[in-house]
Amino acid sequence: MTEHVPGAPPEHLHHWVVTLSCADGPGIVHAISGAIVAARGNITESQQFASLDTGNFFMRLQVESSAGRDEFEAALAPVTERWNMQWHLDEVGRPLRTLVLASTAGHCVNDLLFRQRAGQLPVEIPLVLSNHGTLRDLVDFYGVPFESLAVTDAVSKATFERRVLDAVDQHDIELVVLARYMQILSPELCAALEGRCINIHHSFLPGFKGANPYRQAHSRGVKLIGATAHFVTSDLDEGPIIEQNVVRVDHSRSPGELVAIGQDEESRTLSQAVKWFAERRVLLDGVRTIIFR
Amino acid sequence: MTEHVPGAPPEHLHHWVVTLSCADGPGIVHAISGAIVAARGNITESQQFASLDTGNFFMRLQVESSAGRDEFEAALAPVTERWNMQWHLDEVGRPLRTLVLASTAGHCVNDLLFRQRAGQLPVEIPLVLSNHGTLRDLVDFYGVPFESLAVTDAVSKATFERRVLDAVDQHDIELVVLARYMQILSPELCAALEGRCINIHHSFLPGFKGANPYRQAHSRGVKLIGATAHFVTSDLDEGPIIEQNVVRVDHSRSPGELVAIGQDEESRTLSQAVKWFAERRVLLDGVRTIIFR
Amino acid sequence: MTEHVPGAPPEHLHHWVVTLSCADGPGIVHAISGAIVAARGNITESQQFASLDTGNFFMRLQVESSAGRDEFEAALAPVTERWNMQWHLDEVGRPLRTLVLASTAGHCVNDLLFRQRAGQLPVEIPLVLSNHGTLRDLVDFYGVPFESLAVTDAVSKATFERRVLDAVDQHDIELVVLARYMQILSPELCAALEGRCINIHHSFLPGFKGANPYRQAHSRGVKLIGATAHFVTSDLDEGPIIEQNVVRVDHSRSPGELVAIGQDEESRTLSQAVKWFAERRVLLDGVRTIIFR
Amino acid sequence: MTEHVPGAPPEHLHHWVVTLSCADGPGIVHAISGAIVAARGNITESQQFASLDTGNFFMRLQVESSAGRDEFEAALAPVTERWNMQWHLDEVGRPLRTLVLASTAGHCVNDLLFRQRAGQLPVEIPLVLSNHGTLRDLVDFYGVPFESLAVTDAVSKATFERRVLDAVDQHDIELVVLARYMQILSPELCAALEGRCINIHHSFLPGFKGANPYRQAHSRGVKLIGATAHFVTSDLDEGPIIEQNVVRVDHSRSPGELVAIGQDEESRTLSQAVKWFAERRVLLDGVRTIIFR
Repeated sequence: MTEHVPGAPPEHLHHWVVTLSCADGPGIVHAISGAIVAARGNITESQQFASLDTGNFFMRLQVESSAGRDEFEAALAPVTERWNMQWHLDEVGRPLRTLVLASTAGHCVNDLLFRQRAGQLPVEIPLVLSNHGTLRDLVDFYGVPFESLAVTDAVSKATFERRVLDAVDQHDIELVVLARYMQILSPELCAALEGRCINIHHSFLPGFKGANPYRQAHSRGVKLIGATAHFVTSDLDEGPIIEQNVVRVDHSRSPGELVAIGQDEESRTLSQAVKWFAERRVLLDGVRTIIFR
Repeated sequence: MTEHVPGAPPEHLHHWVVTLSCADGPGIVHAISGAIVAARGNITESQQFASLDTGNFFMRLQVESSAGRDEFEAALAPVTERWNMQWHLDEVGRPLRTLVLASTAGHCVNDLLFRQRAGQLPVEIPLVLSNHGTLRDLVDFYGVPFESLAVTDAVSKATFERRVLDAVDQHDIELVVLARYMQILSPELCAALEGRCINIHHSFLPGFKGANPYRQAHSRGVKLIGATAHFVTSDLDEGPIIEQNVVRVDHSRSPGELVAIGQDEESRTLSQAVKWFAERRVLLDGVRTIIFR
Repeated sequence: MTEHVPGAPPEHLHHWVVTLSCADGPGIVHAISGAIVAARGNITESQQFASLDTGNFFMRLQVESSAGRDEFEAALAPVTERWNMQWHLDEVGRPLRTLVLASTAGHCVNDLLFRQRAGQLPVEIPLVLSNHGTLRDLVDFYGVPFESLAVTDAVSKATFERRVLDAVDQHDIELVVLARYMQILSPELCAALEGRCINIHHSFLPGFKGANPYRQAHSRGVKLIGATAHFVTSDLDEGPIIEQNVVRVDHSRSPGELVAIGQDEESRTLSQAVKWFAERRVLLDGVRTIIFR
Repeated sequence: MTEHVPGAPPEHLHHWVVTLSCADGPGIVHAISGAIVAARGNITESQQFASLDTGNFFMRLQVESSAGRDEFEAALAPVTERWNMQWHLDEVGRPLRTLVLASTAGHCVNDLLFRQRAGQLPVEIPLVLSNHGTLRDLVDFYGVPFESLAVTDAVSKATFERRVLDAVDQHDIELVVLARYMQILSPELCAALEGRCINIHHSFLPGFKGANPYRQAHSRGVKLIGATAHFVTSDLDEGPIIEQNVVRVDHSRSPGELVAIGQDEESRTLSQAVKWFAERRVLLDGVRTIIFR
C-alpha cells in the first residue's frame, strides 16, 4: 500500500469503492472485512457511522483488489444478503454521468464545466439542458452539447421535463444537477429523480421567504450570506442538506454586490456537493445526509 | 498625531467620539468638519454612510481636542441644529454602564465578565440580575453584585421587570444585555429599552421554529450552526442584527455537542456586539444596523 | 441621493472616485469637503485613515457632481497643492486596463476572465501574455487576445519582459496581474511596475520555503492552507499584502487534493484583490496596504 | 444501539475507546473486528487511516461491551501481538489528568477551567503551576490548587522543571498543557513529556520571527491572524500541529487590538486541541497528527 497512492493502484489491481447501509447491529464490520479479505482486498480508506436517529449503519470503503467486479460482488454477496444491505460497488474515480439543468445564470455551470475539464471533478457531462439559450456559447466552449427548450406554460414545462427524463435514459444519467435552473420541478419529476438530483440555493440568517431575498437580506442588514446544496424533494428548498457555506457582508454592500458574493458561494458549494456525491461520499439517513469526507 | 495612539492622547487633550445621523444631503461633512476645526479638533478616526434605503446619513468621528465637553458641544451645536441631527458625544474608552440579565447558563455571562476584567470590553457591570440563583458563585468571583428573582408566573415576571427598570434608573444603565436570559420580555419592557437592549440567540441554516432547535438541526443534518446578536424588539428574535457567526459541524455531532459548539459562538458573538455598541460603533437605520467597525 | 444608486447617477451627473494621501494634520477633511462643496459634489461614500506608523493620512471619496473633470480638478487643486497631496481622480466603475501574465495553470486566468465577462470585475483585459501556449483556447473563448513567448533562458526572459513593458505602453495598462505566472520578475521589471503589479501565491501556517510546498504542508500535517495576494516587489513573495484567505484541511487530504483546494483559494483571493484595486480601494502606507472596503 | 447514546451505555455495559497503530497491511481491520466480536463488543464509532507517508495504519474505535478491562484486553491481545501494535484502551469520557502550566496571561487558563467546570472538556486538572502569582485568584475561584514558583535564572528554572516532573508523578498526569507558559522548556523536559505536552502560540501569514510578532504583523498589514496548538518538542514552535484557527483583521486594528483578537483564537484553539487529545482523537504519524474528529 505504501508504494502507490489510492486511485492509482498497480496495473493488475482494481480500486473499488463500496458503500452500504443496513440496520445496525454487532458483527457487521467483521462480516464486511471478512468478505474483503476473501476478495483479496486491501482497505485503503474506510469510514462508518451508526445513526442513533434511525438505528441504521453506514459504511464507505475503498479497497484495492485483484478481484474483478463479478468475483468481488460474489465475495460480498453472503454478507449483503444476510444483513439485508443496500449497497453499491463502483470503481474509484469513474466519472459520474451527470446532466446539468440551467437557466440564464452562468456562474454555477461555468464552475462545474471548468472543474470537469481541469480534472477536479469526477463527472462526465454529456448534456447541458436549459430553458433559455443564453449559455450556449459558454457551454460550447467546453465542448459540451447544449440544448434549450423554452418553458413558458404548463405544456412547455411538461415537454421540458419529458426531455429531462429522456436524457436521463439516453445518457444513463446518474446525477442531475440544478445549476441555478430557476424552475420548480413537478412532484413527478422530483419523485423520479429522488436521491440523484442536487439543487443549490442561497442561504441567509435568518431565512427569507418570497421574492428577491438578496434585497430582503440587504434591507434587514444581514451580516452573513451563503449557499446550501441539497437533494431535491418535492419541497424544493427543504431536501437533505449536503453542503453549506457562508461569507461575511456588511451594511455597505448593495443588493447587487450581495448577489455577486452569493453567486460565488453558490458555485463553490454546488461543486463541492457534486464532487462528494460523485465520489460516493454522500449517503442518506432519512432526511439527513451522512458525508464521508 | 503620530507621537501617540488614539485613546491615549497627551494629558491636555480630550479624546471625543461623536456619532450623528440626519437626513442626507450635500454639505453635511463640510459643516461637521468645520465645527471640528472650530473646536481645535484633530480627527483620528472617521466613518460615514449614506443609506439608500432610508435616505439617512450616518457618521462616527473620533476627535482629539483640548476643548472640554461644553466648548465642544457649543462648537457642534450650530451644525447639529441646522441639520436637525440626532447625535451623541462621549469620551473614547469610557466604560458603558451595562446591566446583564441571565438565567442558568453561564457561558455568556462568564465571557462578558472575564473580558470586562481583562480590559477587553469597555463596560462597567454594576449588577447581574437573574431569574435563578445558579450563577451566583460565578458572578461573585468577578466581584460583581448578583441578584436573583424567581420568575414563575405573571406576577413574579412583572416584579422582575420592575426590578430591571429600577436597576436601569438606579445605576444609570446605558445597555441591557440578555446573556441567555431565557424569558421573553414584555412589550412594555421592550419598548422601554428600545435601542439599548441586546440579545443573543443561536442561528441555523435553515432556521428552526419551536422547541429544542439543536435537536432539530441535528435531525436535519445541518452543516453550519451559529449565533446572532441583535437588538431586542417586541418580536424577540427579529430585532436589527448586530453580529453573526457560524461554525461548521457534521453528521457525527450529537445534539449535546451541537449545544456546546453553539454556546461558544453565542459567547463570542455577544461579546463582539457589546464591544461595538460600547464603542458607539452601532447605529440604527430603521430595521438595519450600521456597524462602523 | 435616495432616488438612485451610486454608480448609476442621473444622466447629468458624474460619479467621481477620489483617493488621496498626505502628511496627517488638523483641517484636512474640512479642506477636502469644502472643495467638494465648491464642485457641487454630494459625497456618496467616504473612508479615511490616519496611520500611526507613518503619520500619513489617507482618504477615499465617491462624489456625485455635475462638474466635469476639469472643473472638479480645479476645485480640488488648492487643497491638494496646499497639503502636498498624492491624489487620483477617476470615474466610478471605469474598467481598469489590466494585463494578465500566465503560465500553464488556468484556474486564476479563467476566474478573472469569467468575472470580467460577468460584469463582476471592473477590468478591461486587452491581452493575456504567457510563457506557454497552454491557455490559448481558454483565453480565446473569452474573446481576449492571447500571446505566448517561451522563456527558456536569460535572453528569452529579457525578450518576454520587454514585451510586457511594450504591452503596458501599447495598451495604457494600469495593472499587471500575475495569474500564476511562474517566473520571477527581474528587479528592473519589478521597479517599473511598482505599485501596479499584483501577484498571488499559496499561504501556509507555518510557511514553507523551497520546492513543492503542498507536499511539505501535507507531510507536516498542516490544518489550514490558503492564499495571499500582494503587490510585487523585487522580493517576490514579500510585497505589501492586499488580501488573504484560508480553508481547513485534514490529514486525509493527498498532496494533489491540497493543490486543488489551494487553487480555489488562489482564484478567489486574486480576483478579490484585483477588484479592490480596480475600485481604487487599495492605498499604500509604506509596506502596508490600506484597504477601504 | 438505538435505545441509548454513546457515552451513556446501559448499566451493565462498558463503553471502551481503543486506539491503535501498526505497520499497514491486509487483514488488520478484519482481525480487530474479530477480536471485538469475541469480546461481545458493539462498535459505536470507528475511524481508520492508512498513512502513505509512513506506511502506518491508525484506528480509533468506540465499543460497547459487557466485557471488563481484563477480558477486553485478553480478547485484543492475540491481534495486537501478531500485528505488533501500539495500542491504548480507555473508558469513553474518563477525565484526563491534566497539569496546566501558566505565566501571567489568564485567557487560556480561564477558558480551560471554565470548560472543565461546564463539563465541556473531559479533563481533571489537579494543579495549575505558574512562574508568577498573578492568576492565583482566578484559579482559586474554580477550586483548583495553584502553585507559583518564580523562574529568574537557570537554577530556579531547573527547580521549576523538577516540580513539573514531581507533579506529573504525584498526580499521575497524562497531559501537560502550556497555557501561555512563557518559558522555553529544557530539552530534557521536552523529551520527558514527549507526545503528552501541548503548547499554544499565535500564528500569522506570513510567520514572523523575533519579538513582538503582533507589532510586526501590524506593521506588515497582515489580514489574517490566528493560533496553532501543537505538541511540544525541543524545537518549541515546530512540534506536530493539532489544531489551527485564524480570524480576519484589517489595517485599522492597533497592535493592542490584534493581541486581544489573537488571545481569543489562542483560547479556543488550545481548548479544542485538549478536548481532542483527551478523547483519544489525536494520534501521531511521525511529525504529523492524525485527528479522528
